[in-house]
Amino acid sequence: MSLVVIGSVAYDGIETPHGKRERTLGGACTYIALSASYFTPSSIVAVVGEDFASEDRQLLTAKGIDLEGLEQVPGKTFFWSGVYSDDMNDRTTLRTDLNVFAGFQPKLPASYAAQPYLFLGNIQPVLQSEVQNQMPALRFVGGDTMNYWIKDFRDDLLAAIRGWDFLLINDSEARMLSGANNLRKAAQKILDLGPSTLVIKRGEYGAMLFRRDSLFMVPGYLLEDIFDPTGAGDCFAGGFVGYLAERGFDLRNGNFDLSELHRAVIYGSVMGSFCCEQFGTERFKTLTRKEIDARFDEFRRFTAF
Amino acid sequence: MSLVVIGSVAYDGIETPHGKRERTLGGACTYIALSASYFTPSSIVAVVGEDFASEDRQLLTAKGIDLEGLEQVPGKTFFWSGVYSDDMNDRTTLRTDLNVFAGFQPKLPASYAAQPYLFLGNIQPVLQSEVQNQMPALRFVGGDTMNYWIKDFRDDLLAAIRGWDFLLINDSEARMLSGANNLRKAAQKILDLGPSTLVIKRGEYGAMLFRRDSLFMVPGYLLEDIFDPTGAGDCFAGGFVGYLAERGFDLRNGNFDLSELHRAVIYGSVMGSFCCEQFGTERFKTLTRKEIDARFDEFRRFTAF
Repeated sequence: MSLVVIGSVAYDGIETPHGKRERTLGGACTYIALSASYFTPSSIVAVVGEDFASEDRQLLTAKGIDLEGLEQVPGKTFFWSGVYSDDMNDRTTLRTDLNVFAGFQPKLPASYAAQPYLFLGNIQPVLQSEVQNQMPALRFVGGDTMNYWIKDFRDDLLAAIRGWDFLLINDSEARMLSGANNLRKAAQKILDLGPSTLVIKRGEYGAMLFRRDSLFMVPGYLLEDIFDPTGAGDCFAGGFVGYLAERGFDLRNGNFDLSELHRAVIYGSVMGSFCCEQFGTERFKTLTRKEIDARFDEFRRFTAF
Repeated sequence: MSLVVIGSVAYDGIETPHGKRERTLGGACTYIALSASYFTPSSIVAVVGEDFASEDRQLLTAKGIDLEGLEQVPGKTFFWSGVYSDDMNDRTTLRTDLNVFAGFQPKLPASYAAQPYLFLGNIQPVLQSEVQNQMPALRFVGGDTMNYWIKDFRDDLLAAIRGWDFLLINDSEARMLSGANNLRKAAQKILDLGPSTLVIKRGEYGAMLFRRDSLFMVPGYLLEDIFDPTGAGDCFAGGFVGYLAERGFDLRNGNFDLSELHRAVIYGSVMGSFCCEQFGTERFKTLTRKEIDARFDEFRRFTAF
């Protein structure tokens, strides 16, 4: 079943203790769609500038990603650069040039409107709502946000997520959105805001899925080398929603298997872990579904008791 | 099967956002023995001063803990006090009065010498070795240490742990001991030092168990309220080794079930989580084995996929 992903396509400059890339393909929408493409046909709605390279377009199309919604406009593509601390637990942003992304007005191609799965990447909440309203046949919709929207566009954000099935954020965002420091309390408050499913990502410490009457937790996959954590959270999102789309997960019709949601969290964790193994999106050049399923099995082995 | 625990018995002054205790029973040995007592007969080797209260002695004996090795000498009992930050992720030590603990020379009662399980709490490594050398019938021995011994008594510590079956430390200690920041690499280096089993505690983020050819991970139990985290790591240790003693775990004779070690990590996590629910050791006044087993089952429910 097809998934539509909205968000940023960007170029990133990244420096970690393992090396440096001056300019490599990035952006939340890119990572989410690449990750989800291992599970389900994916389409993106995003904007790039005239500098968007044909080899990057090819990487996406080679994964079967539908680029009809990738608008190319005069100007430069969103550029971000940052440097990670030695232990890679912190990063400092060096530069954020929004460029063409500053005026991003998502345009949903007509061919996307009937698709059943939608992931709303981190953009202005009003735009997230506008896209969702154009898709009448959704089975499962949700997305991500960030501190900026939580703090300064709270009403817009609350209006947007009221219509979501799931919200997928990190622990500091969950605390900020709910006003509660304890994650169990934070989760209960967020579930009151609309989404029936909340996924809280904790980076190397794993992830948790909350619903009104259930909780699921998974520790982080322990990599031998974390090469570059950029995009790991977005790859988690892509694995999570991509797997559910593959399974034809149908939350809105009430006929669903809770354990599918749990397995989706594992696939999210798996995809996030692969992302960290090379710079930027580079791991996706060679990653296979077979490797993904093998790591899923490893998760089972490492956590069963 | 009986367990001997060596370490500190202390009084603690604790302040958390939930309240304050001027003076409450604490010390690693106390927490470990109390926690282990739910699984196996436990004996302690420790020292207290003349101020050690009879009600504290009674709390321990009520749990069936053998106090023959609890030496009472002139002077005051070890006293520590500290205050936790608002999110309880940091704590500041206000006072450390070693008192009678400064001259602690563990004296193993003759009746303890033949016991099969030994947990060496965090004391000077030479003393840890001396105790171990007096116990010829050990089936499973290991312990804890801290940054001070790792940094300034490294040779003594390496000599001690060479003879241990397991080492149970937190993630920053594992990094310091191994010199590796990545925990997977750190674990491999530590397994080269002697212990065939390494347990790394990560507080609210859970725990990991490493052996040469296996890895087991568990996320932290998510409490609604963390009242006071003091002693949680020691209660983890008590649950871990106590459960294995209950099962008659026999690592040294090579005839053991790996999944018992995994379940021991879960029982450790369970005991650590209960410890945080009230101040100091107070939770142990009412805790029952039935509650413990129910939380073990909850762990299974929260992590199965």
